[in-house]
Amino acid sequence: MEKIGFIGLGRMGKPMASNLRKKGYDLVVHDLNESAVAELIELGASKGASIASIAEECSVVITMLPSSVEVEGVALGPGGIFENAKRGTILLDMSTIDPLATERLSIAAQARGLSVVDAPVGRLAQHADRGESLFMVGASEADFVRVEPLLMGMGTTVYHCGGVGAGGRTKLVNNYMVVALCQMNGEALALSQRFGLDLANTLQVLYGTSASNGQLRMNFPNKVLVGDTTPGFTIDLAHKDMSLVLGAAHALKVPMPLAAAVFENYSLARSAEYGKLDFTGIADVICDLAHIERARVPKGWTPPV
Amino acid sequence: MEKIGFIGLGRMGKPMASNLRKKGYDLVVHDLNESAVAELIELGASKGASIASIAEECSVVITMLPSSVEVEGVALGPGGIFENAKRGTILLDMSTIDPLATERLSIAAQARGLSVVDAPVGRLAQHADRGESLFMVGASEADFVRVEPLLMGMGTTVYHCGGVGAGGRTKLVNNYMVVALCQMNGEALALSQRFGLDLANTLQVLYGTSASNGQLRMNFPNKVLVGDTTPGFTIDLAHKDMSLVLGAAHALKVPMPLAAAVFENYSLARSAEYGKLDFTGIADVICDLAHIERARVPKGWTPPV
Amino acid sequence: MEKIGFIGLGRMGKPMASNLRKKGYDLVVHDLNESAVAELIELGASKGASIASIAEECSVVITMLPSSVEVEGVALGPGGIFENAKRGTILLDMSTIDPLATERLSIAAQARGLSVVDAPVGRLAQHADRGESLFMVGASEADFVRVEPLLMGMGTTVYHCGGVGAGGRTKLVNNYMVVALCQMNGEALALSQRFGLDLANTLQVLYGTSASNGQLRMNFPNKVLVGDTTPGFTIDLAHKDMSLVLGAAHALKVPMPLAAAVFENYSLARSAEYGKLDFTGIADVICDLAHIERARVPKGWTPPV
Amino acid sequence: MEKIGFIGLGRMGKPMASNLRKKGYDLVVHDLNESAVAELIELGASKGASIASIAEECSVVITMLPSSVEVEGVALGPGGIFENAKRGTILLDMSTIDPLATERLSIAAQARGLSVVDAPVGRLAQHADRGESLFMVGASEADFVRVEPLLMGMGTTVYHCGGVGAGGRTKLVNNYMVVALCQMNGEALALSQRFGLDLANTLQVLYGTSASNGQLRMNFPNKVLVGDTTPGFTIDLAHKDMSLVLGAAHALKVPMPLAAAVFENYSLARSAEYGKLDFTGIADVICDLAHIERARVPKGWTPPV
Repeated sequence: MEKIGFIGLGRMGKPMASNLRKKGYDLVVHDLNESAVAELIELGASKGASIASIAEECSVVITMLPSSVEVEGVALGPGGIFENAKRGTILLDMSTIDPLATERLSIAAQARGLSVVDAPVGRLAQHADRGESLFMVGASEADFVRVEPLLMGMGTTVYHCGGVGAGGRTKLVNNYMVVALCQMNGEALALSQRFGLDLANTLQVLYGTSASNGQLRMNFPNKVLVGDTTPGFTIDLAHKDMSLVLGAAHALKVPMPLAAAVFENYSLARSAEYGKLDFTGIADVICDLAHIERARVPKGWTPPV
Repeated sequence: MEKIGFIGLGRMGKPMASNLRKKGYDLVVHDLNESAVAELIELGASKGASIASIAEECSVVITMLPSSVEVEGVALGPGGIFENAKRGTILLDMSTIDPLATERLSIAAQARGLSVVDAPVGRLAQHADRGESLFMVGASEADFVRVEPLLMGMGTTVYHCGGVGAGGRTKLVNNYMVVALCQMNGEALALSQRFGLDLANTLQVLYGTSASNGQLRMNFPNKVLVGDTTPGFTIDLAHKDMSLVLGAAHALKVPMPLAAAVFENYSLARSAEYGKLDFTGIADVICDLAHIERARVPKGWTPPV
Repeated sequence: MEKIGFIGLGRMGKPMASNLRKKGYDLVVHDLNESAVAELIELGASKGASIASIAEECSVVITMLPSSVEVEGVALGPGGIFENAKRGTILLDMSTIDPLATERLSIAAQARGLSVVDAPVGRLAQHADRGESLFMVGASEADFVRVEPLLMGMGTTVYHCGGVGAGGRTKLVNNYMVVALCQMNGEALALSQRFGLDLANTLQVLYGTSASNGQLRMNFPNKVLVGDTTPGFTIDLAHKDMSLVLGAAHALKVPMPLAAAVFENYSLARSAEYGKLDFTGIADVICDLAHIERARVPKGWTPPV
Repeated sequence: MEKIGFIGLGRMGKPMASNLRKKGYDLVVHDLNESAVAELIELGASKGASIASIAEECSVVITMLPSSVEVEGVALGPGGIFENAKRGTILLDMSTIDPLATERLSIAAQARGLSVVDAPVGRLAQHADRGESLFMVGASEADFVRVEPLLMGMGTTVYHCGGVGAGGRTKLVNNYMVVALCQMNGEALALSQRFGLDLANTLQVLYGTSASNGQLRMNFPNKVLVGDTTPGFTIDLAHKDMSLVLGAAHALKVPMPLAAAVFENYSLARSAEYGKLDFTGIADVICDLAHIERARVPKGWTPPV
């Protein structure tokens, strides 16, 4: 049976690997955190002796790591995946990294008869827990066919966005919008509060017009609007994603003044020590800085259908 | 039978008045444009001899005018509505004006035993044509009961947002979001284009995540994405609304950096002579300025459900 | 002897009027604040019975008032200057107001054989105290000749910027730059502080390159850099001036993204309750919000020549 | 006699090396561009056989390279400076690079008994030609004593800003201001133009108030104001420096909304294909985009003293 390598068992990686294992995949895992590895062993996975040995044994190696540096390290570094993998092996990277790094990986892979698939994740940690992740995939047709069942083992929605790199690029477009929506909603709520409007009335209107948006409708009602800013996705991570977005935009000469304003405000939020909050909490940051009462719905309120 | 005054038969006012007349209301109308007046007379409305006479005859006087200046002129000026109206008359203002102007009107009305209801419109001209407008209403409970049937004669959705002024304030919150969404979507599409992504693929993903929003889903597919930038709502008008939003925000000390960035970009679009385009056309402005190919969906494309 | 009217004896107007009086001008003054009027009477000025009587008696009427509303009130209102002035009278307005208001005044003046000169002030209250103000004057050649001696009685520098309105417009350009410089310097100092640089070293370099600027060189060393944020010119007033600048820019379709960012940050400063501080204090606001140590030079430090 | 290595003979490096050679220094040079090397040989310099041999022979190795990547390459790479230098050798880096790269270099140098001095340049190419450069130096006291004569061989002004890294950090603060001043002046000039003001009059006022600044006074009159936008320092390079500034600001949590707005506008200028122009040309970009007449002084105009 085909073996699958899984490197990176953090807040996202661990539940994803667990879900794969529960679906019966033969997993070889790696993480610096031994307790995360132990949990996977408990579920029947085996522990890789080294990155190199994982690369040798597995036909697909999944990486779910914090940033480009770590992914390039395990893939390109000495003793890394590329040095040790058999021809035809797929590196399936689910991390959110710089599109230029994905390109470097892909070029290096091709030179060795390997291939790269980028499949970053489009929902939150709680979705990963429940096996309900969404993936944006950049892959050749042939590679897509091979990885799709794996991805469906961890999520419910898989989009094939184009060739290698298209997954990561689509994710940046998507995350820009998601992060910007939080800032936009935050400013709107702050204005509504200062206007002295009834929050439930305002929301009812906004849900009924073209102002409606996924963050306001799906995420805000469970998070900042009820005063829960424990992180699903932190302001720090939102800031990191915006950094990738604006880095790409500047490299490619795409002027994005709204994105830049959002990025600065998340930077201010981090300076003011709100970085660990859920990113919907940016609404609270705006209100706090301006001495406006935070936007909270009354107990028992539910969003209109 | 109760008579209803209707002042302002422009792109929005004329179809609204027509719909009211078709529902059987006894209308007395006024506009400087005689041909618009003639159309209403054709439908059975009568022409007011003057603002003063309309005020004398009617128990509700509707205004649908370009800005605060015109509304304050016809209401407060010599020979205006307030000088001539009977006690108990309602000024039902559907224009989008500065909330401070609405406040001034309301104070002046109260002093004369009159009242003001603000009921700005939350959808576009084509909705007005079909009697499908949405209203955000600021009114006392008693006044709301009186105007609701009238509003339902012109639209399908009426929100009672709070006391006098709450309608206009809610509209500003709403329109800020709607205009900002166009800029946000525009930047996202420009980035997607420069990334070389397939537009239909990108849209399919965005419609399926929390990046989704009313403008991208409902307005863009019929307008800029198919190359139709004939105005439903112009960049000039969007700029005007943002001017009211930021004026209020600065007066009330609500910092809105995203809104300010949007406002500047609409100003740039006007400088570059795109002011008469539909406001979804801001996506084209961004692409044009940066020499990026405009975002267009393929023929026959329809948004995923 | 020619009589000069002086309306508005506030923080700027009183010392200016006093300086004029000390130069021997025959002054007739007006202010709602009786103690300011008393101080001028002490110096030999007389108190005007009314705005109307001042207009009748004087060949030049100076106004130094908070905003357009007050200036238009005393000039155009019933019992105001224009109704009562003799042909040939000059309204010499030294307030900082909307250029469109100056235009309205000028048109109304011409219709009555009067004229308007706009001469807003380009230095601070402490300069006014010492008779060292700077004036930017918009006037016809003939009117300029008449008002120049008066202005030189209150200041040391008089620029004839062009016809009526050119003074106020130049002032807006100037004040935009002055206010933006404070924000720019503030961000630079915050960065220097967070970089752990020695502030005196940084300043020495900046004073020696093209980064040098009037605010950093002349104003900062006496104000925020030594911890003195008692107002010469408040953040609130800087915000008001930026409001006029951006109002004009948007009306005339001049995109000013830097100005807009400055305006928003001053708005944030006001929201965070720093509005009454000197406008150089914006440097402290940036540092405070980001938990950065405020930029202060060591005791005894003096700027390099 | 002590030998000095010089790596990087581009637009800045070549005149600097030439000036050093003319002062009699024994130079060993390296560049991929053979014709630049030939020019230095003509002046009596010798050509290094390799980076390694330069490192072996020289007690000070100067680098003047485009970015962090190249500097880290020649210093840390295989066959590079650090592998081959004698203990006590100084790497004198005059490039403008990321402060974090300087830190990495310094740590690696210390481990081998070498040291790093960062001495980026604070004036333009034409100053380098004339031996009039300005240096901002980060160095230990002992190293500063060693490099100061060399720097004075290439320039007229040497600031010792602090320990290693302080030179580069000060340069970023300085360049942020210089680049932001161009944008600020550009917006002011665009506003002045649209206001219909006489440009020479406006400039006379601005030079006489605290709005005055080094760019407007020293650089603009020889460049954009007389229609010369051949590059002293390009918009592309200004954009690159702002990228380092904002990268550092975000890493260190310094909110810089004005800087971000400037960065975006330079990005827009590059998108609109103005990247190769002198950075004072940003004033033209603003005017062009908004269909405003470019700001040009009349023939024969000279700035007031």
